[in-house]
Amino acid sequence: MNAEIISVGTELLLGNTVNTDTTIIARELSRLGINLLFTGTVGDNPARLDFTIRQALSRSDLVITTGGLGPTGDDLTKETIAKAAGKKLVFHEESFRRIQEHLAGREMAESEKKQAYLPEGCTVLKNNVGTAPGCAFETDAGKLVMMFPGPPSELIPMLRDYGAPYLLKRENAAIVSKNIHVFGLGESRVAELIADLTEGSNPTAATYAKECEMFVRVTARAATEQEAEALCQPLADKITARLGDVVYSTQADSLEELVVRELSARGLKLATAESCTGGLLAKRITDIPGSSDVFEMGAVTYANRIKTMVLDVPEDMLERHGAVSEEVARAMAEGIRRKAGSDLGIGITGIAGPGGGTPEKPVGLVYIALSDGKETYVRRMSGTGRPRSREYQRTAASSNALDMVRRWLEGKPVLP
Amino acid sequence: MNAEIISVGTELLLGNTVNTDTTIIARELSRLGINLLFTGTVGDNPARLDFTIRQALSRSDLVITTGGLGPTGDDLTKETIAKAAGKKLVFHEESFRRIQEHLAGREMAESEKKQAYLPEGCTVLKNNVGTAPGCAFETDAGKLVMMFPGPPSELIPMLRDYGAPYLLKRENAAIVSKNIHVFGLGESRVAELIADLTEGSNPTAATYAKECEMFVRVTARAATEQEAEALCQPLADKITARLGDVVYSTQADSLEELVVRELSARGLKLATAESCTGGLLAKRITDIPGSSDVFEMGAVTYANRIKTMVLDVPEDMLERHGAVSEEVARAMAEGIRRKAGSDLGIGITGIAGPGGGTPEKPVGLVYIALSDGKETYVRRMSGTGRPRSREYQRTAASSNALDMVRRWLEGKPVLP
Repeated sequence: MNAEIISVGTELLLGNTVNTDTTIIARELSRLGINLLFTGTVGDNPARLDFTIRQALSRSDLVITTGGLGPTGDDLTKETIAKAAGKKLVFHEESFRRIQEHLAGREMAESEKKQAYLPEGCTVLKNNVGTAPGCAFETDAGKLVMMFPGPPSELIPMLRDYGAPYLLKRENAAIVSKNIHVFGLGESRVAELIADLTEGSNPTAATYAKECEMFVRVTARAATEQEAEALCQPLADKITARLGDVVYSTQADSLEELVVRELSARGLKLATAESCTGGLLAKRITDIPGSSDVFEMGAVTYANRIKTMVLDVPEDMLERHGAVSEEVARAMAEGIRRKAGSDLGIGITGIAGPGGGTPEKPVGLVYIALSDGKETYVRRMSGTGRPRSREYQRTAASSNALDMVRRWLEGKPVLP
Repeated sequence: MNAEIISVGTELLLGNTVNTDTTIIARELSRLGINLLFTGTVGDNPARLDFTIRQALSRSDLVITTGGLGPTGDDLTKETIAKAAGKKLVFHEESFRRIQEHLAGREMAESEKKQAYLPEGCTVLKNNVGTAPGCAFETDAGKLVMMFPGPPSELIPMLRDYGAPYLLKRENAAIVSKNIHVFGLGESRVAELIADLTEGSNPTAATYAKECEMFVRVTARAATEQEAEALCQPLADKITARLGDVVYSTQADSLEELVVRELSARGLKLATAESCTGGLLAKRITDIPGSSDVFEMGAVTYANRIKTMVLDVPEDMLERHGAVSEEVARAMAEGIRRKAGSDLGIGITGIAGPGGGTPEKPVGLVYIALSDGKETYVRRMSGTGRPRSREYQRTAASSNALDMVRRWLEGKPVLP
């Protein structure tokens, strides 16, 4: 099945909004094994929308639209598609009731009622977050059409709960995916290492880049979920074994999620002392709901004076070695651990740039220390190599700190 | 002039990468007063790329492509467009030398040389960040074609430094834009308030949403920059005056940039104590290069024990009022200010969710305090209203804290 996505909305053409809808649907189609050949965006203009939809219906088996289902006069997607596909729009009682419920007592404007008119004979895709329902139907020419609302907060649950199951049911298929999350090896290097394992068509394996890390997605398709699972798992295991300990999880979606979950399971507590990352590590840990069980204290100690006052980093150490040094990173990790009375302490000091670099200590040089009360491990990020943005440096440093904690938790070497 | 953008790359169709290139170019075209009517994405497939490009050349005056200029066999954009436009690719000596320089001694692979072949008679758009140059040329049918590399880190400077000036020069025009940044009023409310000021065609004024805030962009077009400036400024001033003190800047691009710059200019220092925002405020402040001049210390005090130990928040206050209370926010702001010896101290305590809410203290309730040593101001974010994500709550709380500081700095009322 060949698919095409059409996003509708003048705001996308003005650069007001990044089109994440297309990416979200593209990734889901890829998971479902459906080929996406074209995507396009068109403004709230009936003639150009009509042209684009007719072209899509003529060349693709599945046409998915996002946006233009709302109550305003600009919202023309349904009307235009229905006309192009030769379908009438009919009043859908249940959707009308659901819109009423969503408005929670507020009177429904005349314009809002039009959201309850849907192509005759369609399958309604319920909107549990907003007012505009989506829909799916087959044209007389056998083409499949699906319409989703534009706001990602409405699109994402509708696609997950109704859209993807609709597509799977039509094909009597089940899909199982597993993500293998990797930190410490780049996407292209991983692709090389597992090249022979990514050639199959079922299960498939594909590499994806993420900020400062990557993941491999293994997807299998079968008649039932159990069969798909049985196809998927062996390849996922093989890839995990091949990649070794750079794989940090096949369950958690991020290093911080894994670290918070594992610390919590063992009743361990962590404290952080950050200089160049300026609170980013604490922020990432506390992004995770329930992090209060494992994280009690973080310190952002930018000034040397504060490193000494809050973390007991000796003044003469700062003078002798400089704030960006292995010694100071150690002292920060040990200091915050003592101060917070936690099981683990992390210290990060480095030069995030763009200013502040010297030939001996270039931008990008970062020392990260992890203290467990017995030993203090230090990882050094080199400041040489190609220049990266301040944001990248800070993200990479905080990811390295989380990676050290997860290695420590797994009893693996906390690599320098 | 009607424009169309075509993004080339199978990775976009697999949902591997969000297409930010299109948004970046769309926004720039909007600023330049060029109508964007269509955007599309097509994979690394010669037949479909050829079809898409020929269609674009037939219906649009300006066709802009992104991606597919690199050294691999997949990179087909130049070849396909040149063929569709009837242009030969010719060797471009200077681009070849620039690629060599970029490789810094590493030998150039045969495949990399093809990046130096460009459509005959084109204007080369230099790549100061990567190897693949962009280009711009006019077809025999009078259509304008521009090609940019896919990575945003290469596209953004090329568009700004060579792409936009090329378009402006062709039209003998200059463009001046001013952004009016607003915190504390939503985009739709601002659009209502300035509706009568957004109707003109030169200068134009348009509203844009940003995370937890918005901005108005005023753009004027004229023969020279001075004339454009003279057209732009009066409308910008009018809008700024109309909106009043919710406008935080027409210079700085973010609240944190403004706050760091203004604190620095006055030699003032700030310290932060965060609970529910978990380091996000410190992270945002230290995102700004040079923040070390104004920010010496941040504390992330999740546990009550730590609030008492680090910030001297009285234990009985925590017991009586709870950690999420006006009293504790005050004590945190005053405590961190004393501890750090800074001019200003901020304390944030609240319930970011999704768990932890009660009927009296719902998810989203946040108290933010700002202490200047004489007075302590408190702003309360209500936890009622429609539910928001943890991320939104935390961003909004940190933005409110920054807004309080900028109001204090400007001598304006630090609204509750």
